[in-house]
Amino acid sequence: MRDTNRVWLLAQRPDGRPDAECFEFVERDVPDPDRDEVLVRTLYMSVDPYMRGRMRDAESYADPWEVGEPMQAGVVGEIVASNHPRWEEGDVVTGNLQWADYAVAGGHELTRVDPDVAPVSTALGVLGMPGRTAYFGLLDVGEPTPGDTVVVSGAAGAVGSVVGQIAKEAGCRVVGVAGAEEKVDWLTDELGFDAAINYEDEDVHGALREAAPDGVDVYFDNVGGPVTDAVFRELNVRSRVVVCGQIALYNATEVPTGPRKLTQLIQKRARVEGVLVSDYADRFAEATDRLGRWVNDGTVQYRETTTDGLENAPDAFLGLFDGVNVGKQVVKVADRE
Amino acid sequence: MRDTNRVWLLAQRPDGRPDAECFEFVERDVPDPDRDEVLVRTLYMSVDPYMRGRMRDAESYADPWEVGEPMQAGVVGEIVASNHPRWEEGDVVTGNLQWADYAVAGGHELTRVDPDVAPVSTALGVLGMPGRTAYFGLLDVGEPTPGDTVVVSGAAGAVGSVVGQIAKEAGCRVVGVAGAEEKVDWLTDELGFDAAINYEDEDVHGALREAAPDGVDVYFDNVGGPVTDAVFRELNVRSRVVVCGQIALYNATEVPTGPRKLTQLIQKRARVEGVLVSDYADRFAEATDRLGRWVNDGTVQYRETTTDGLENAPDAFLGLFDGVNVGKQVVKVADRE
Repeated sequence: MRDTNRVWLLAQRPDGRPDAECFEFVERDVPDPDRDEVLVRTLYMSVDPYMRGRMRDAESYADPWEVGEPMQAGVVGEIVASNHPRWEEGDVVTGNLQWADYAVAGGHELTRVDPDVAPVSTALGVLGMPGRTAYFGLLDVGEPTPGDTVVVSGAAGAVGSVVGQIAKEAGCRVVGVAGAEEKVDWLTDELGFDAAINYEDEDVHGALREAAPDGVDVYFDNVGGPVTDAVFRELNVRSRVVVCGQIALYNATEVPTGPRKLTQLIQKRARVEGVLVSDYADRFAEATDRLGRWVNDGTVQYRETTTDGLENAPDAFLGLFDGVNVGKQVVKVADRE
Repeated sequence: MRDTNRVWLLAQRPDGRPDAECFEFVERDVPDPDRDEVLVRTLYMSVDPYMRGRMRDAESYADPWEVGEPMQAGVVGEIVASNHPRWEEGDVVTGNLQWADYAVAGGHELTRVDPDVAPVSTALGVLGMPGRTAYFGLLDVGEPTPGDTVVVSGAAGAVGSVVGQIAKEAGCRVVGVAGAEEKVDWLTDELGFDAAINYEDEDVHGALREAAPDGVDVYFDNVGGPVTDAVFRELNVRSRVVVCGQIALYNATEVPTGPRKLTQLIQKRARVEGVLVSDYADRFAEATDRLGRWVNDGTVQYRETTTDGLENAPDAFLGLFDGVNVGKQVVKVADRE
């Protein structure tokens, strides 16, 4: 066990794409848990596109991170000291903690992770926030019906790859859009997508007309921008667009512009709706249980892209904007003891 | 009764704003009704923004009008000859007929208009398609709750003026956006809107922040473009946007562009949905009945802007794009005999 705590701070807010100046790596004392608190040693730390929004000083669904303060992250860790009756040393937990080796948390802020169900890192991916986002976003907002054509952007990412597989299970034709040949192959050859489009190499609109000849009934959007413009042109009457992420736009320095789309929504009586997984907090157990069974029976497969070392967390985060990751991007910080 | 039939044809498809070249006024014989058909003499003819879409050669929810063929319109008319058992001479009816003095229609394509309920022209406005659009769009898609703030663009138009009054009846705070001082005054002084913004004179976003200090829960959009951009910035969590019309964009010669809005939808978990009144055909009677009662008890007031003479129908239509009309724009073609 380390005797100091390495912590990533938000050094300054990014203007456009974040760079090294935005992150500061400091050494601090390992904190002491107070009453009802525990000390958690980080095993895996999550990096996610939403974090770009927290680096911004702007009103959103959550408060922005403060400059000079530790950056926050979903973490899977091990209890190393407990002042809370629910937890004892060695328990594996997940919660919203910090980009750090250690963090103190209130005992009630953590959720137990069962290492026998699946590798513990999946609590940050297929069995965690991204998996639940896919589950509620597709099923509750997208409302897929057997026979529907479902298109997913960011299809090889942590959320998109799960969306597509649940949509297959729901009896849909599934078309993924991703940014690399390796990803496209994974989607069609291993995950069972009916088709996948490489937006780096192909005319997305033309390829989509071929891959979705009956139009698009559900579009699950993780990306935004030109890919989304192309998909909107193929929306069917009464189609549903689930807006989950817009990673193509998050580093824009000016308000991004694009074709106006509302006239199409009238013509198609389509519905466009944003989804945020925290709105479904009272149903997390349902999603985790269902996803756990699907992972165990092979219905839902997953990949993780693992970056080693807390010191490399900023690179792992920035790689999200280049589409480096296949499946869930995690940072491995330590082994279990 | 005229012994010839004047008919407006679509002479050519417009490129941008329609002009005189797009319309051709011809004289033809008065047609004879066939078996099960009737001959209708036009009393009032409707001009509506959606007609701009029918002039275009593009796929939409309805087929485009053909060049060289009569233009279509909602009409209130009088039966002057009937080969259908349901109708007799002198009956007042409404249906989708033509920009013409006379038209033949199948007896089953017409709906009876009761001249004792309200002036017959209202069958084209508050008791017709625009009123029903307001009713279903606001109540079924917008889902207003007492205490909500409802913003309506094109608020002094045939649809918007009814939307705002139904929203008041539903217990909402109602803010209208319109393009003239006379309209703004009508909305607040006579229709009971809580506030109204003149987008020609005011900074819409600033004025909206004042008029809707708690944000926007329902936005009923008839206009699109910059007004809509301003309203989107004030959407609340779980707000609903009813996309009914985008008249500011219909004459665009290139795909209109504007700020991308999907990221906001995630932050606000807002829902944006298009509405088309024909989807509610099986519930038209419900809306007409409810609107009729509201008109009779003064809950819903209305205005009509009447252009005299079939020969002036293109001007009446084009005036819609300049916001000339207050309330429903109709063309008076003939008096009842």
